[in-house]
Amino acid sequence: MSATFTLAVDAMGGDHAPDIVVAGLDIAAERHPGARFLLVGDEPRLAPLLSRYQRAARLCTVRHAPDVIGNDMKPTAALRSRNASMRVAIDAVAAGEAEGVVSAGNTGALLALAKIVIKTLPGISRPAMAGITPSARGDVVMLDLGANVACDARNLVEFAVMGDVFARAVLGLTAPSIGLLNVGSEEQKGDDRVRQAAEVLRASPIAAQFAGFVEGHDITAGTTDVIVTDGFTGNVALKTAEGAAKLVGELLRQVFRSGVLSRIGYVFARGGLERLREWLDPRRYNGAVMLGLNGVVVKSHGGTDAEGFAHAMDVAMDMVVHRFNEHIREGLARVVGPMAVASAPNGSAVAPAG
Amino acid sequence: MSATFTLAVDAMGGDHAPDIVVAGLDIAAERHPGARFLLVGDEPRLAPLLSRYQRAARLCTVRHAPDVIGNDMKPTAALRSRNASMRVAIDAVAAGEAEGVVSAGNTGALLALAKIVIKTLPGISRPAMAGITPSARGDVVMLDLGANVACDARNLVEFAVMGDVFARAVLGLTAPSIGLLNVGSEEQKGDDRVRQAAEVLRASPIAAQFAGFVEGHDITAGTTDVIVTDGFTGNVALKTAEGAAKLVGELLRQVFRSGVLSRIGYVFARGGLERLREWLDPRRYNGAVMLGLNGVVVKSHGGTDAEGFAHAMDVAMDMVVHRFNEHIREGLARVVGPMAVASAPNGSAVAPAG
Repeated sequence: MSATFTLAVDAMGGDHAPDIVVAGLDIAAERHPGARFLLVGDEPRLAPLLSRYQRAARLCTVRHAPDVIGNDMKPTAALRSRNASMRVAIDAVAAGEAEGVVSAGNTGALLALAKIVIKTLPGISRPAMAGITPSARGDVVMLDLGANVACDARNLVEFAVMGDVFARAVLGLTAPSIGLLNVGSEEQKGDDRVRQAAEVLRASPIAAQFAGFVEGHDITAGTTDVIVTDGFTGNVALKTAEGAAKLVGELLRQVFRSGVLSRIGYVFARGGLERLREWLDPRRYNGAVMLGLNGVVVKSHGGTDAEGFAHAMDVAMDMVVHRFNEHIREGLARVVGPMAVASAPNGSAVAPAG
Repeated sequence: MSATFTLAVDAMGGDHAPDIVVAGLDIAAERHPGARFLLVGDEPRLAPLLSRYQRAARLCTVRHAPDVIGNDMKPTAALRSRNASMRVAIDAVAAGEAEGVVSAGNTGALLALAKIVIKTLPGISRPAMAGITPSARGDVVMLDLGANVACDARNLVEFAVMGDVFARAVLGLTAPSIGLLNVGSEEQKGDDRVRQAAEVLRASPIAAQFAGFVEGHDITAGTTDVIVTDGFTGNVALKTAEGAAKLVGELLRQVFRSGVLSRIGYVFARGGLERLREWLDPRRYNGAVMLGLNGVVVKSHGGTDAEGFAHAMDVAMDMVVHRFNEHIREGLARVVGPMAVASAPNGSAVAPAG
C-alpha cells in the first residue's frame, strides 16, 4: 500500500495517559513508518513526552485540546465537552483529516460521540463493539462487547453481518462460521430475540456460514469463528473469560512457588510456560473495534500499557488499510438490506426519511 | 442430626444414566449412611446395577417408572409425561415421601415440573438456579444460572435474597457480600433492570451486604461472595468461565508434552499441579440448586460421572439437613415482603388473590 493513512489518537484517555499513549505511539510508529498520526491532547504535557519519543514525534502532529472526558462522565455530559481530546480526535475523522481514531478513554462517551459525530453506516441501526479472543482453535471474533446493553433480533442479525466481514478482514477467512450465543444449542432454547435472529440468519445469504446457537464454553473452544451476542452478555462473557484465565494463571504461579521441587519444575518448563503466557497476554487482544460507523474507531483497554496501546493502533491500521468499512457496506447491502424490509420488527429500518 | 432424610433420585436422567447415577448413589451412601434414597427409574435395568453396588442397594428403595424425559423434550411435553422417572421422583417430594430430589436430566423439564408439582415458596415469583464456582478468594455463589432467561428488577432482588441465604448455608458465612453483575461498576451503567434492582437493594435490610455492581472478571476474582444476574447472562458466564479454565488447562498440558525439558519440569511440579487440577475439577462444583421451591431440587450436570453425581447428592443433603427452605422463607419475609408492596414494577406481587 503506497497511500498514506492518518490515525487520530486521543492522548488523554485511559488510566495512564498521556504517558503510555505516547510510548505506545512510539512503538506503532516503528511498525507503521508510512503512517501519520494526529495526537490530540494537552500540548504542554505532550511536548516533553514527545521529546523523549523521537520516532513518535517524527510521524505525528500535535493538536491542542485542553479538556479531558473522565471515566465517570456520562455520555450526555461528554457530548457537551467540545474541547475534550476525545472529541477533537473524533472531529478529525468526521472532517476527513484522519481515517480512524484510537482512544483508551470512556467507552460510553466514545461510542456516543462516534455515533453523533462520525455517524453510522446506512442500514445500521446500532454500531457494535467487536474484539478478538483466543480459543483452542485459533482467534475468534466476538461482538457486541458492550456498546448495546439491550438488543433486539434485528440488532443481532446486523452484528452477525458485521462480524462476518470483520472476521474476513482480521482473521483472513473466506467464509467464517458464525454462532449465536445462547443458553443451549437446541432450537427452542433462549428467548424470542435469539430465536428470531436465528430464523432470519437461517434464511439469509450467509445461512451457509450460520452454525446456529452456541454456548459459553464454545467461545474458548473455538466452535465458530464469530460469536454474536448482545452487549450485556458479550461484555460479561469477555470479562469472565479473562478473569477465569487470570485465575488459573495466578494459581499456577502459586504452584510454581510452593516448594523446591515445583521451583525446579518451573525452571525446566519455563520456555513453554513463557510462550503460553505470551499467547494469552491480554495486550495481544487489546483494541475493540466499533463497527458500523463511517470511520474506524478503536477502543483500547483503559488500563493497558504502551505495548497494549500499540496493539490497538495496529488493529485500527488494519481496518484502515483493508478499507474495512467498504466491505461492511457491501455485506450489509447483501444481507441486511433485503432482510430489513422483510422483517424489521420495529419498523426502524423502513421508516420514511421525512 | 439424628433425623432420617430421604432423597429421591432420578435414575434415568443424564448422558450416562442409569449407570453413573447408581454408581454415584453408592458413593453418596457411604458418605451419608443415615440417609435413605428413593431410586426412580426402569426397574429391570436398575436391578442388575444395584446387585453390583451393595452400599447403594442397602439404603435405597426402587420405584419403577417406565418412561424417560429426553434432553430434547420441550417442557410442555415433559409435563404430560406422568410416568417418567423425573416426574415420579418429583411427585415423591410433593407427596412428602422425600425431602429433596436430584436429577441429571433435562434442565427445562426439571424446572417446569418442580414449579408445577412442588410449587414455589410464598413470595417468590420465579425460582432460580444457583451454583458454586471457584474464585481467587474462595468459593462464590452465582445465580441465576439459566432458570429464567428474561428477568425484571424484582426477580433480581429475589435472587439476591435467595443467594444470601444460600451462601450462609453452603459457605457458612454470617453476612455474605452480594454483587449485581453488570457491564461496569459505576452507578449509571447497565439497563433499567439492574439499576432498579440496585436501588431496591440499597434501601433493603440487606443493604449493608450489597456491594453494588460487579463485572465479569469479579466472578473469579471473588470480589463478592454472591453474584446475582439473570439466567441468560449467568448461564453464559458460568459456561464461559469453565471453558476458559479448560482452555488454559489444555494449553498447559500441551506445554508439558512439548519437549524433554518440559516433561522433566512436569515431573518435579506434579504434586502442585495435581492439587490445582483437583481444586478446579468441575465435579467438585457439580450440583446446581433450584432455589425458591417448596422442596430441595438439585440439578446435576448431564455429562458428569459417578463422583460428580455424588457431589450433587452431597449438595442436596446439605440443603435438606440445614433446613434451607425455612431460612429462605425467613429471609424473604424480611426483605422481599415489604419491598414487593413498595416497588413491584408489574404489580405481580400485589395482585389481589381473587
